Amino acid sequence: MTQKLYIGKIATLFAMLDDDEPMPFELDLNSISICKGKVGSMNMQKVISSVETAVKRNGLIKEGIYRETHALYHAILEALEGVTRGQLSIGEMMRTVGLRFAVVRAKPYQEVKEGEWIAVAFYGTIGAPVKGLEHEAVGLGINHI
Amino acid sequence: MTQKLYIGKIATLFAMLDDDEPMPFELDLNSISICKGKVGSMNMQKVISSVETAVKRNGLIKEGIYRETHALYHAILEALEGVTRGQLSIGEMMRTVGLRFAVVRAKPYQEVKEGEWIAVAFYGTIGAPVKGLEHEAVGLGINHI
Amino acid sequence: MTQKLYIGKIATLFAMLDDDEPMPFELDLNSISICKGKVGSMNMQKVISSVETAVKRNGLIKEGIYRETHALYHAILEALEGVTRGQLSIGEMMRTVGLRFAVVRAKPYQEVKEGEWIAVAFYGTIGAPVKGLEHEAVGLGINHI
Amino acid sequence: MTQKLYIGKIATLFAMLDDDEPMPFELDLNSISICKGKVGSMNMQKVISSVETAVKRNGLIKEGIYRETHALYHAILEALEGVTRGQLSIGEMMRTVGLRFAVVRAKPYQEVKEGEWIAVAFYGTIGAPVKGLEHEAVGLGINHI
Amino acid sequence: MTQKLYIGKIATLFAMLDDDEPMPFELDLNSISICKGKVGSMNMQKVISSVETAVKRNGLIKEGIYRETHALYHAILEALEGVTRGQLSIGEMMRTVGLRFAVVRAKPYQEVKEGEWIAVAFYGTIGAPVKGLEHEAVGLGINHI
Amino acid sequence: MTQKLYIGKIATLFAMLDDDEPMPFELDLNSISICKGKVGSMNMQKVISSVETAVKRNGLIKEGIYRETHALYHAILEALEGVTRGQLSIGEMMRTVGLRFAVVRAKPYQEVKEGEWIAVAFYGTIGAPVKGLEHEAVGLGINHI
Repeated sequence: MTQKLYIGKIATLFAMLDDDEPMPFELDLNSISICKGKVGSMNMQKVISSVETAVKRNGLIKEGIYRETHALYHAILEALEGVTRGQLSIGEMMRTVGLRFAVVRAKPYQEVKEGEWIAVAFYGTIGAPVKGLEHEAVGLGINHI
Repeated sequence: MTQKLYIGKIATLFAMLDDDEPMPFELDLNSISICKGKVGSMNMQKVISSVETAVKRNGLIKEGIYRETHALYHAILEALEGVTRGQLSIGEMMRTVGLRFAVVRAKPYQEVKEGEWIAVAFYGTIGAPVKGLEHEAVGLGINHI
Repeated sequence: MTQKLYIGKIATLFAMLDDDEPMPFELDLNSISICKGKVGSMNMQKVISSVETAVKRNGLIKEGIYRETHALYHAILEALEGVTRGQLSIGEMMRTVGLRFAVVRAKPYQEVKEGEWIAVAFYGTIGAPVKGLEHEAVGLGINHI
Repeated sequence: MTQKLYIGKIATLFAMLDDDEPMPFELDLNSISICKGKVGSMNMQKVISSVETAVKRNGLIKEGIYRETHALYHAILEALEGVTRGQLSIGEMMRTVGLRFAVVRAKPYQEVKEGEWIAVAFYGTIGAPVKGLEHEAVGLGINHI
Repeated sequence: MTQKLYIGKIATLFAMLDDDEPMPFELDLNSISICKGKVGSMNMQKVISSVETAVKRNGLIKEGIYRETHALYHAILEALEGVTRGQLSIGEMMRTVGLRFAVVRAKPYQEVKEGEWIAVAFYGTIGAPVKGLEHEAVGLGINHI
Repeated sequence: MTQKLYIGKIATLFAMLDDDEPMPFELDLNSISICKGKVGSMNMQKVISSVETAVKRNGLIKEGIYRETHALYHAILEALEGVTRGQLSIGEMMRTVGLRFAVVRAKPYQEVKEGEWIAVAFYGTIGAPVKGLEHEAVGLGINHI
C-alpha cells in the first residue's frame, strides 16, 4: 500500500506555484489527469461550482455518474475546510477569497486494487472584502473515486 | 499593503518538499526566520506541543511573552483545521497523523506598519492507525505576531 | 440514476427494529450485503472500531484495501454526526451511548456505472452516564465504495 | 425512568415509511400527537419554517408560548445535524434536500414527572442540485417540552 | 412575552463580579434560585460535572428527573461554546481553563405559561497550561426547564 | 504576566449594563480605549460590519492597517461563537439577534512587552424572528493587537 504518487502534494504545488516557477520534481504526465483554474468570490457556491465546472470540462470526472460527482464534491469541501479554518462560510462571515485551484486524478498507491483517487487543492488569499486586507490560505481534500 | 513575501507558500513548501527537492524560487534567508520539524501521533496535544517546542527552541518566538505564544497557538490550530478537515480531533476519531511542519516568521507586507506575521504549515499523512491505510493532508495557519 | 434500493432506509430499519418487529417491505437479500451489531461506550474510538470490526468480520469490505476502509470510515463518521448532533465527541462531553448499528453494501442505483455504495446506520440512546437519563438518537452515513 | 414510548423511533418510521408500508408495531394513537409533512429546498430557513408551520397548524405546540417554540426549534436543528452531517448549511454548500418529516409529542417515560418530550425526524435525499445526483439522509432531534 | 427578569445577565454578573463588587441593580432573591462555584481543569468532563454537582447539591434541579438534567446539560454546553469558541475541547487542544460559574433558575417572562428557565454562565481564563499565559473567557447558555 | 486590567470583563459589563446601572468598580478611562454600539439583524455580515464601523469611527484601530483589522475580525468572530453557540449563522438558521456591543483596547498585562490587546463583547437577545420569542445571549472575543 506504499504510495507511488503523491497526488496531494502535486495538486497543492500546481495550485501554489506561479507559471515561471518549476515543479521541484519530474512528473510523468501520462500517469495523472490534472486541471487548474481560478476563482475569486464571497460566495461559497461559486467556488464549489467553479471547480466542478473545470473538472467536468476537462473530462476528469464522468458527468452523468453520481459516484464521481460525489467523490469530487467531498474532496472540494475538505479542501475548503483548510481555506476557511473552522466554518465553511465566506461572504456570510464578511470575508472574500481569491483562489487558484488544481485537481489531480490518478492511482496513487502501488497496489492495483486501490484504484483511482482524486485530490483537490486551493491556494490564494482570504480576507476582508478590501484589496490587500488579506492573507494566504491553503486547502487540500482527497477522496477515493 | 501588497505582499512582498509569501510566508504561507514558503512554509507550505518547506513542510512539503523533500531534502533533495529544490525550492522553486530564491529565498532571502535574512528576511525570514524559519524552523522545521516532524511529529507522528494520535494525540493532538503532542502535535501542538511539538510545534511549540521547535519554535521556542529555535528562538522564533520569545518564550515568556504570552502575546507571541497566543499568536503561534492560533496559527497552529488553524493549520490543524486543514489537516483534520472538520473536527479538531485525531485519536478520539480513531485516526493518526504523520506530519512534517514548518514555521515562518517575517514581515510579509510592503507597508512597515504591518509588522511581523507567523505562518505554520503541516504536510504529511492522516489515516487509520495501520501503516499504509492513510492519505495526504495539508494545513496552513497565519497570524499577526 | 433512479434509486432501486434504499440502502439508507434499509440500514436504519435494521438498526432500529427489534427482533420481533417485521421489516415493512420485502427485501431481496441476494442483492445486498448486511451486518449488524451493538456497542455501548463513552469512547468514540470504541464505537468506530466496533463497526469496523463487525464489517470486516462479515466480509462486507476487503480488509487490506485502504479504499474500502476509507469509504467505510467516512460513512461511520457521518452517521455519528447524527448521533452526536454538533460535536463528534461522547465521553469528553460527559455523555454515553448505547447503540445498535447496521451496515448495508449494495448497488442502490439503476445505472450499472454507479457501482457499489455503503450505508452505516445507528439507533439507540445517548445521555448522561446514569441508566435512564438518556434519550434516543439516530444517525446515517452513506458513501460510494 | 424506563422509556415506555420510543418517540424517536416512531417519528423516524413515520418520516421513512411510504404510505403502503405498515408500521412494524401497534401504536396507541391516543397517547401521542403526531404530524407529517414534506419539504424540498436549498434554503435551510425554508426547511425549518416548513416544520414549524406544520407543527403549529396541527396544534402540536402552542403558538404564543416561546418555551414550546424554543423546544421545537432546537429539536429541528438537531435533526438537521443528522441530515447535513457537519455543517448546518444546504444551498451555500451547493446542495439541495428533498425531505419528509414527522414530529411526535408525547410522554415517553414511565415516570410522570418526566412530562412531555418532542421528537423531530427527517428522511429523504441530499445531493447536488441535479435530479438523481443525491443519496439518502436521516436526522432525529429530541427535546423536553 | 416581555422579559421581567434577565436571568442571563444575572448569572453572568454573579460569575463575573468579585465578592467586593456590588451588583449594579437590586435583585429580589425570592424570585430566583441561584448557585455559584469554581472549577479549574484541562478536562471538559470535570468542568461539566462540577456545575452539575453544584446545581444538584443546591437543589436547583431535581436529581432523579431526566428532564431537568437534560435542560441543564444543554445550557452548560452552550455556555462552554462561548468559553471555547469553536471546538468544545480543552485539554486535547492543549489549553486549560480557570472558571467561576453561576446558575440561575427562575421565571424570566411575564407570561405565566412560559414557566421556568435556567441560565448557566462562566467567567474566567483560558490559555496555555502555564500560569499567566491566558486571557479571559465568558459563556452563557439558556434553556427552558 | 499578571493581568492588571480585565478588558474582557470591562467590555462585557459595558455591553451588558443599562445606562442607569453603575459599573461595579472604578475605571481609569485614560488607560483604555472603548466604544459601544447596537445592532439588530438576521444577517451576520451586518453584525460584523456594525462593530467594525463603530471601532474605526472611534479610532480604536487604524483603518489602513491589515494587522489591526485582522486582530479585530477574529475577536468579533470569537465573540459571535458565544452568541450563536455552535454554528456561526443567524438568518440562515431562521433566527435573529438584537445586540449591544462594546470594544475595549488596552494593555491588560503588567509586563510591558505584552503590549495591546482587544476585547469584543456582545449582550442581547437571540431567537425566532418574532418579537419576544427570544432569550439572552453573551459573547466575548479577545485577541492581541
